[in-house]
Amino acid sequence: MSENRILARIRRRARLPVGAGLALGIGDDCAVFRPTSNREDLVFTTDLLLEDVHFKRDTHSAADIGWKTLARGLSDIAAMGAEPRFCLVSLAVSHDLSERWIDGFYSGLLALARRYGTPLAGGDLARAAKIACDIVVCGSVPRGRALLRSGARPGDRIYVSGLLGGSALGLETLRGRALKRHLRPAPRLELGRYLRQRLAATAAMDLSDGLSIDLHRLCMESRAAAELDAPLPVFPGASLDQALHGGEDYELLFTLPPDRNPPAFFNGLPLTRIGFVRRGAPGRVTFFGRPLPPGGWDHFR
Amino acid sequence: MSENRILARIRRRARLPVGAGLALGIGDDCAVFRPTSNREDLVFTTDLLLEDVHFKRDTHSAADIGWKTLARGLSDIAAMGAEPRFCLVSLAVSHDLSERWIDGFYSGLLALARRYGTPLAGGDLARAAKIACDIVVCGSVPRGRALLRSGARPGDRIYVSGLLGGSALGLETLRGRALKRHLRPAPRLELGRYLRQRLAATAAMDLSDGLSIDLHRLCMESRAAAELDAPLPVFPGASLDQALHGGEDYELLFTLPPDRNPPAFFNGLPLTRIGFVRRGAPGRVTFFGRPLPPGGWDHFR
Repeated sequence: MSENRILARIRRRARLPVGAGLALGIGDDCAVFRPTSNREDLVFTTDLLLEDVHFKRDTHSAADIGWKTLARGLSDIAAMGAEPRFCLVSLAVSHDLSERWIDGFYSGLLALARRYGTPLAGGDLARAAKIACDIVVCGSVPRGRALLRSGARPGDRIYVSGLLGGSALGLETLRGRALKRHLRPAPRLELGRYLRQRLAATAAMDLSDGLSIDLHRLCMESRAAAELDAPLPVFPGASLDQALHGGEDYELLFTLPPDRNPPAFFNGLPLTRIGFVRRGAPGRVTFFGRPLPPGGWDHFR
Repeated sequence: MSENRILARIRRRARLPVGAGLALGIGDDCAVFRPTSNREDLVFTTDLLLEDVHFKRDTHSAADIGWKTLARGLSDIAAMGAEPRFCLVSLAVSHDLSERWIDGFYSGLLALARRYGTPLAGGDLARAAKIACDIVVCGSVPRGRALLRSGARPGDRIYVSGLLGGSALGLETLRGRALKRHLRPAPRLELGRYLRQRLAATAAMDLSDGLSIDLHRLCMESRAAAELDAPLPVFPGASLDQALHGGEDYELLFTLPPDRNPPAFFNGLPLTRIGFVRRGAPGRVTFFGRPLPPGGWDHFR
């Protein structure tokens, strides 16, 4: 097995679709993207996915890891209300893994990439002691229209999509629908676009580290406080603690002015009002009147 | 130490310059870039830098690692003849490293970022067993004018900038100017722009893995062969083997039509003709008439 041969395989499999805006994909020092309009903003995200930090090899197949690597990036694109345009992926594989494992990784990643029209335009490949993946996704959004964390205003209502705590439950029990949620999260791209175009959400972000810490961050950016005063949409079987603090649900957290009512479901996905934004110490979150310190995932705590 | 606190520190230090084209930097789900013209192509690269693969902690300070992480990305931008616009960096730090180490990493990275006007627009932060860095750099180039690997034609002459083998020598001896070359490589951005604007180079790439394998790759993309028939510009003290196969020199390899003569020096940097492109099996490289198999760095050999 040689690096050149592996790269040639990936390149064949990631053949660029016509008209994707990419003038050049895998095979040069850089990928080349040709913006078709100067009425669009481009949005960029990068996320690490590391063995024994974000996943374990005995619970995640190669294809699961490839899928999840891209899903993390696409979830950030969804949170901006943007359309994905292309992605790049850096992959370090450990010495004991075969070319078949690498194939599996790209199968999972490319399956999700095809579903959301996100061609793989480049990346990097290395060997290391443990698996390390880094995803880069570029998306586009009409100029000045990206959904930000900083736009929530006192009085706005706070909503979440889907059911919370499923990923944490799946990680704990390693079975059932919860495990599937953990292994193959679905980026909420259609919902993100709907929040921007139809609901004109004032703020949005994706739930990657846990509701309590992510809502705290949204409030910090919006210089506001929040009160959670309604039942959370808890994933069947998950605990309240998993719904409040569990990471990796990749649902969207968003805010709307009080006079704007979203439907109860969007394409079958529940949209639940869980609280409201209010004046107060920036970042302070209360849950039925009591302080809710940011829990969830913090690499440095 | 908490993730939020570290992120707040990085964000203060990476404050965006006015007019950089960035509408939004660190602090949201994505960075937002606003293209000012639709006459430009955007180029993208991503590169891993991993502990015990690309560097060792006892030879590289935190600031060296930060510098080198960005230098790898900027070198790819230089190879396209592009201008850097912004960067993102993902960093996983090991558990025994302090906030001071993280500060040092960003000091090295931001020193190079300032030198080349490349604001840090976002990234990711995690803890892991070993240090892992992934850099993303976006650059811009007039539409359709990026320097590619695929443009070399039989008869073109092959050139390299600078002196080869210095980084490999520095890694071996761990001292002197060679070590400095290894720790703090200088991306050849001014030269890349000059190659595009003034010399209209037919092909270019950066030397990251070693001349023999990188020239092989350039020839593969150009569907041509190459003969090296002139003395190499060898770094003082380095061996011919280090000059032919040593990685991480981050010099530029480029081709020009035979009637186009570059100066012997560009801003003090020697430009040396080392061979010529010819018809033949794609990727085949000969050195004074003998086959030169691709050596250099291959993670998978």
